[in-house]
Amino acid sequence: MTTRTLEDRLKEWPSPAAMLQNSQMGPYVFPIAPQYTNWIEEVRAWRHGAVLLNQSYHMTDLYVRGPDALRLLSHVGVNSFAGFGRDKAKQLVCVNPDGYVIGDGILFGLEDDEYLYVGRPPLAYWIAYQAEISGWNVTTELDIRSLENPDRPRRLYRFEVQGPKALDILNEVNEGGPLTTRFFHMGEITIAGCKARTLAHGMGGAPGLELWGPYEEGKKVYDRLIEVGAKWGMLRAGSRAYSCAAMESGWIPSPLPAIYTGEAMKGFRQWLPADNFLAVCSVGGSFQPENVEDYYLTPWDLGYGRMVKFDHDFIGRPALERMAAQPHRTKVTLVWDREDVLKIFDGLMGPYPGPKLMELPAGHYAAHPYDQVLLDGALVGLSTYPVYSANERAWISLAMVRPDLAAQGTKLRILWGEKDGGTAKPHVERHVQMTVGAEVHPWPIHEAARESYRAQK
Amino acid sequence: MTTRTLEDRLKEWPSPAAMLQNSQMGPYVFPIAPQYTNWIEEVRAWRHGAVLLNQSYHMTDLYVRGPDALRLLSHVGVNSFAGFGRDKAKQLVCVNPDGYVIGDGILFGLEDDEYLYVGRPPLAYWIAYQAEISGWNVTTELDIRSLENPDRPRRLYRFEVQGPKALDILNEVNEGGPLTTRFFHMGEITIAGCKARTLAHGMGGAPGLELWGPYEEGKKVYDRLIEVGAKWGMLRAGSRAYSCAAMESGWIPSPLPAIYTGEAMKGFRQWLPADNFLAVCSVGGSFQPENVEDYYLTPWDLGYGRMVKFDHDFIGRPALERMAAQPHRTKVTLVWDREDVLKIFDGLMGPYPGPKLMELPAGHYAAHPYDQVLLDGALVGLSTYPVYSANERAWISLAMVRPDLAAQGTKLRILWGEKDGGTAKPHVERHVQMTVGAEVHPWPIHEAARESYRAQK
Repeated sequence: MTTRTLEDRLKEWPSPAAMLQNSQMGPYVFPIAPQYTNWIEEVRAWRHGAVLLNQSYHMTDLYVRGPDALRLLSHVGVNSFAGFGRDKAKQLVCVNPDGYVIGDGILFGLEDDEYLYVGRPPLAYWIAYQAEISGWNVTTELDIRSLENPDRPRRLYRFEVQGPKALDILNEVNEGGPLTTRFFHMGEITIAGCKARTLAHGMGGAPGLELWGPYEEGKKVYDRLIEVGAKWGMLRAGSRAYSCAAMESGWIPSPLPAIYTGEAMKGFRQWLPADNFLAVCSVGGSFQPENVEDYYLTPWDLGYGRMVKFDHDFIGRPALERMAAQPHRTKVTLVWDREDVLKIFDGLMGPYPGPKLMELPAGHYAAHPYDQVLLDGALVGLSTYPVYSANERAWISLAMVRPDLAAQGTKLRILWGEKDGGTAKPHVERHVQMTVGAEVHPWPIHEAARESYRAQK
Repeated sequence: MTTRTLEDRLKEWPSPAAMLQNSQMGPYVFPIAPQYTNWIEEVRAWRHGAVLLNQSYHMTDLYVRGPDALRLLSHVGVNSFAGFGRDKAKQLVCVNPDGYVIGDGILFGLEDDEYLYVGRPPLAYWIAYQAEISGWNVTTELDIRSLENPDRPRRLYRFEVQGPKALDILNEVNEGGPLTTRFFHMGEITIAGCKARTLAHGMGGAPGLELWGPYEEGKKVYDRLIEVGAKWGMLRAGSRAYSCAAMESGWIPSPLPAIYTGEAMKGFRQWLPADNFLAVCSVGGSFQPENVEDYYLTPWDLGYGRMVKFDHDFIGRPALERMAAQPHRTKVTLVWDREDVLKIFDGLMGPYPGPKLMELPAGHYAAHPYDQVLLDGALVGLSTYPVYSANERAWISLAMVRPDLAAQGTKLRILWGEKDGGTAKPHVERHVQMTVGAEVHPWPIHEAARESYRAQK
């Protein structure tokens, strides 16, 4: 039996863009409780107290093992791998042969010949595919997210403790040696007799740890963190709070993978089953090009230009070398105008159809949201993942704008809602388009300098 | 082993009101998908097309059987039971000996000696308790809602097809005799070879049917309804859409049961386990009396005065006879002022803490929400269950107000949010109180006359 593939599925649609824009799948799902207490307090907890995030379910893990593991990763990653190995971690970015981003995620050096990719699905499949066609001495093992395999437990639990009180809690639960808290360094922690590995990173400017271990030990570790955390007022973040975290940090969770066109990527499309996430995922928002390639982003668009290192050969290197010298869009945070956002909520009380509803706290309605950023009616950038930040007390989004418009305080407009009443995505109610003013700020938005700047207004 | 009871639990709190106001339980839960497509379109479907509601999980069923079944029901119900029996249905209302409402729900005459109560939990337990202490020839069987017994399937599936196209769909799927569509009359339907019983009632002014049968047959019936419904554009209502339905219809889903005080109700409190819904349920809103009896409502408060029939003896009759001659509060729909509602959403973008968040589409945050209704700062009524109606394009609530203030167009104010920053209910974020203007309208709000009245403004 031949498996139906993404390439087959694409043939049933007038264009890849039409397929993605009218996908029957809604936004990306975090399969945990929407809120454990109240999402506003849970969001505030990572800025003002401590929060426990359970990331055990929503990400796809890929193990890459063997003598050629690092060779493979270096072959697909734009990043430098100089000095990379056990106990090192980095944000891996991969591009297609034309230099457009397929995805990014965290790469952990578990051993010198064993690496673990953790993130959205696209890169996991891309790396597995490249391993398969490489002919090298490397194997991969996929541990897919729970949504796609709800009956199989994950191999690892993955928790994060973040916020100003995170290290107090982590030091109190730790039964092992000193914690490794230097940014993006890996270490160990022992909780309730269970040894876990850690990655130091932060949220909202405060340091914290991500930690993981065998899934079976997760409950013991979780219960102990809850027990000690309670003394420090730690809250658990539900899926609604979690959906705002990336935007406050300036991370665009999922660029549309640049895989839907081109002969060079055809093999990958023929390898991917037609029911794979990459085949059924949705694109939404007011940026609705007919050519799917208009969605494709460069590493510079996403703020990853500094990660591109020409110290090794990798897929897309020649294209990126050409791009490097050209002007790039600049990633910024957009703070949406209070009065204009209110018009969206006011529209609920006006005639039907009104403006596109903004759900709280995540206003987007597709796995890959792209809205037009306008200046005097002309397209000058793309805005992604609008969310209400209960810390910033504002609606914010991450955007890529023309570099001359990236200065803090620049006034732009966002086109909100899809054309012609909305696409056929079932989560999209009929609506009319409108524009919303926005002000440019750097990313991440949380830095004190920005706060005081905005407070002065 | 002695079971801990509600009466025991009450002893651990300074007052019943404090226990209920600080309950750790959130709003009443409908354990179905939040939305199948988009809640706005799903709400619109019962006014403009057709909608399938799955009510198989969230209500508690109580079977009452035996020669004295009707005697028992007549003993607890304020309603007349003259001519009641097989294939009759009514909205059963029960009060305590002081005449205050314990609850209401639908009573179905399955056979002349078998009745089925379906509704929120309080009355199911009250009837079962009364059966137990009656010494009569009557038995009861409880089929509790899925939330409290997730691993046991329900005895019955229960669906509703509603909206202007509902009868088109039901006639098309029906393989049996003619449908019984007279309001609140019971009948039969055969779908996919499965015989089901029906109750005719409507939503938004259009007639539809509620139907039920053995749970095992539910999937076949559901699939066939979906198949035929698709031709008519039928949508499924998720829990978010469903949460608005009662308020559009003018039904207050759950008055706080008047059971927490008084020697006469002590036996019931000692019979109820401490983990029962009635022991752990929450009360929320700006009406925060210290005396729980201030929450208690009369049948007239809820618009059920016309159901009180002194043609039989029943618990509470003498008290209701005294009340009958006194002035009563009047049930009305409140349409919340657009500008003031916007201030709540605007507050999200102002300093923390802001006004109490209104979730869309159900703004309340407790199983029993009570907000103060004010005129010139004085308490003149109670407002319950604020929701956004995507049909009315307005925030509405149901309220009981002083009778001289019940005229359409009367301007009142609602106190929104809890005092002192909010109670200890975990779903309540810190907030400040504010008032929201509201205009009085009759119930149900959907009647065309009201619509045109509001449209003229």
